[in-house]
Amino acid sequence: MKIIKKNAFYAQSGGVTSVINASACGVIQSARKNKKYINRLYAGQNGILGALNQELIDTSYESDVEINNLKYTPGGIFGSCRYKLEDYRKNESDYDKLLKVFMAHNIGYFFYNGGGDSQDTTSKISKYCIKKGYDIKCIGIPKTVDNDLPLIDCSPGFGSVGKYTAISTLEAGLDVASMCETSTKVFILEVMGRHAGWIAASSALASSSRKKPPHIILFPEVAFNEKSFLNNVKQNIEKYGYCVVVASEGTKNKKGKFLSDSGSVDAFGHAQLGGVAPYLAGLIKSKNGFKCHWAVADYLQRSARHIASKTDVEQAYKLGSYAVDLAVSGKNGVMTSIKRISDKPYKWKLITVPLNKVANVEKKMPKNYISSDGYHITSSCRKYLEPLILGEDYPKYKKGIPSYSIFKNKKVKKIKI
Amino acid sequence: MKIIKKNAFYAQSGGVTSVINASACGVIQSARKNKKYINRLYAGQNGILGALNQELIDTSYESDVEINNLKYTPGGIFGSCRYKLEDYRKNESDYDKLLKVFMAHNIGYFFYNGGGDSQDTTSKISKYCIKKGYDIKCIGIPKTVDNDLPLIDCSPGFGSVGKYTAISTLEAGLDVASMCETSTKVFILEVMGRHAGWIAASSALASSSRKKPPHIILFPEVAFNEKSFLNNVKQNIEKYGYCVVVASEGTKNKKGKFLSDSGSVDAFGHAQLGGVAPYLAGLIKSKNGFKCHWAVADYLQRSARHIASKTDVEQAYKLGSYAVDLAVSGKNGVMTSIKRISDKPYKWKLITVPLNKVANVEKKMPKNYISSDGYHITSSCRKYLEPLILGEDYPKYKKGIPSYSIFKNKKVKKIKI
Repeated sequence: MKIIKKNAFYAQSGGVTSVINASACGVIQSARKNKKYINRLYAGQNGILGALNQELIDTSYESDVEINNLKYTPGGIFGSCRYKLEDYRKNESDYDKLLKVFMAHNIGYFFYNGGGDSQDTTSKISKYCIKKGYDIKCIGIPKTVDNDLPLIDCSPGFGSVGKYTAISTLEAGLDVASMCETSTKVFILEVMGRHAGWIAASSALASSSRKKPPHIILFPEVAFNEKSFLNNVKQNIEKYGYCVVVASEGTKNKKGKFLSDSGSVDAFGHAQLGGVAPYLAGLIKSKNGFKCHWAVADYLQRSARHIASKTDVEQAYKLGSYAVDLAVSGKNGVMTSIKRISDKPYKWKLITVPLNKVANVEKKMPKNYISSDGYHITSSCRKYLEPLILGEDYPKYKKGIPSYSIFKNKKVKKIKI
Repeated sequence: MKIIKKNAFYAQSGGVTSVINASACGVIQSARKNKKYINRLYAGQNGILGALNQELIDTSYESDVEINNLKYTPGGIFGSCRYKLEDYRKNESDYDKLLKVFMAHNIGYFFYNGGGDSQDTTSKISKYCIKKGYDIKCIGIPKTVDNDLPLIDCSPGFGSVGKYTAISTLEAGLDVASMCETSTKVFILEVMGRHAGWIAASSALASSSRKKPPHIILFPEVAFNEKSFLNNVKQNIEKYGYCVVVASEGTKNKKGKFLSDSGSVDAFGHAQLGGVAPYLAGLIKSKNGFKCHWAVADYLQRSARHIASKTDVEQAYKLGSYAVDLAVSGKNGVMTSIKRISDKPYKWKLITVPLNKVANVEKKMPKNYISSDGYHITSSCRKYLEPLILGEDYPKYKKGIPSYSIFKNKKVKKIKI
């Protein structure tokens, strides 16, 4: 049977991670190995917008060395976007545009690397193309630091944020422990997690004992109780001399209102942007009088490739390369995924799950992963989290800073459509 | 000549760093090599308070392996303190106590590891003991992330914060560059530096071009001009699609008022604790409407041993071990210091400086280190900073997190005095 060579399209979507480029590396390297099927691999500039606006990057101009270094480079090398496609039954114009671009550039493979929304997009595009009789294999590649994707052992990007969070908690904990006799008694670290507390939970890997930091973890899944929290802080200070709190940005009160929306006002009279950590510091200071320090990690946590989890990097890479293998073998409408085989040693295998089962489902922390007092994790949770931060995979350094990839990102000539 | 063996006292003071324990390691290993002179090395629990309250830790109970691992451990292993000794001509009681403790425990060597205030303390103790005819060698060991000590090429602890800041700026910069098309346009990183902008300056090592992050650096040495700043942010976004700002916590307006005190109010009606980053984000959002993200590194930056500068670790270690060598050879009243011999390759040597010339002098950024527009560094500054972040010196890892030292910290029996 004669193989009809086609071009492939790959794009990155949503908030980036320190290992989304490792998935890109997997896709590109596997596409280069599958030259029998794939002619050129185009990347969308700024996610799906690249396809919609025909801003296509021809990855064949990048050297093998630079492609390999993608594995060590944080951020999204081709740019990402936050853009949600409407249902094509409601608004077909975007789909119509995409199809024309795919046809004009002979795209036969579509790879979309993102979270729940992106899997939804991939699913819709796959269905639309089938409906229109256009032959394209659409494969989703998972990614999200929030770890809230269903049907996968863990979301690529999460293990590295978890490692960053555990190490930061350990290190800042040693700092405040040194200072607490005459200075700071409380340190608060704010981490990402609007609806799910996975990142905050991973801080618990800093120590196996609740006597050591983090003493208190705040999850979006547990309603914040001011009195109990303040008591808990005080007790930790009485017992250990200090208290380290790790707070999810999405920590809410009983009424479901974010603490960060609880009345902090900036110098311009507007509600403060983000900031559950300064809120808690203000609370502790005004109610208990303890000296507090606080940090907000924000983008630092999800771009900290310098301390990425080797396990996470490997999974991200393989989920990308597997997607290409599946597509060239004719698979369509699935997301590459990870199934855990054992905890210790951590063993896992690549599987596929149907896109429509992933889209728009959010995996929160299970109840049996949060300790009965609501302020820490259980041993089941620890068993789940521990393998995800294993291993270091350092980038190369030049003049004291990591040598991250710089791409030419040469554009494909636009075709009039 | 018969050598009279004495005990030694070492303590850590002020805000800790990721390499102050490397200095402790140098002191302890050198003391163990100098058994001819030094019997036992006692460490003060929580700095000078340990001597005042006779809370002495006998370091001889710690194994050689654990001592060596101190080189890789952030925080202050014996605890630190913020405590300023008054002039003994005004209040002699603390000095009287110290002398009694020294005599009771046969202390003949005093090593104090800290910033400007601590060098002042060491100087005062040295003078007081001379006055009282008590034979003790007092040597200061420098330390401060702020890099504001005079008569030394750089302060130990600074190179590692500089490396952390440059890498964080690089990594978060790649993140926001990926997101800027449809989401965040401005990222602000707040770093330490109340009076001197050294840490913020080090972010410039993320790139050799002003076209790349950090686009704007705010120094305490340069009065903040709102209009010019907002224009600058806008121009960067117009040119590059996004803008990364690194702000010193001590950024002030023309009247010398900290921006972080400029009216942010927490939910309890109190002035916001810290936070120049959220202030700037509020300003940009309200005046220009750009979407901002911000991070406050706080303790994370000065405890990030996982990404310490090898150059910094080596200097911290040698400044500690040199102090012991000096003391046993009879030197008194000096601080160990570093003199730069060449920039490229970076060559330096150990020297000593008189304690009283270090105390209470603050080294700010020289004018020729700040670019003429006030928002970046000059090539002279780059030449000065570059070698300080060179080299990586990773700790060992176990289960995905660094194996930092845990000490027994066994106390010496108190003697009634």
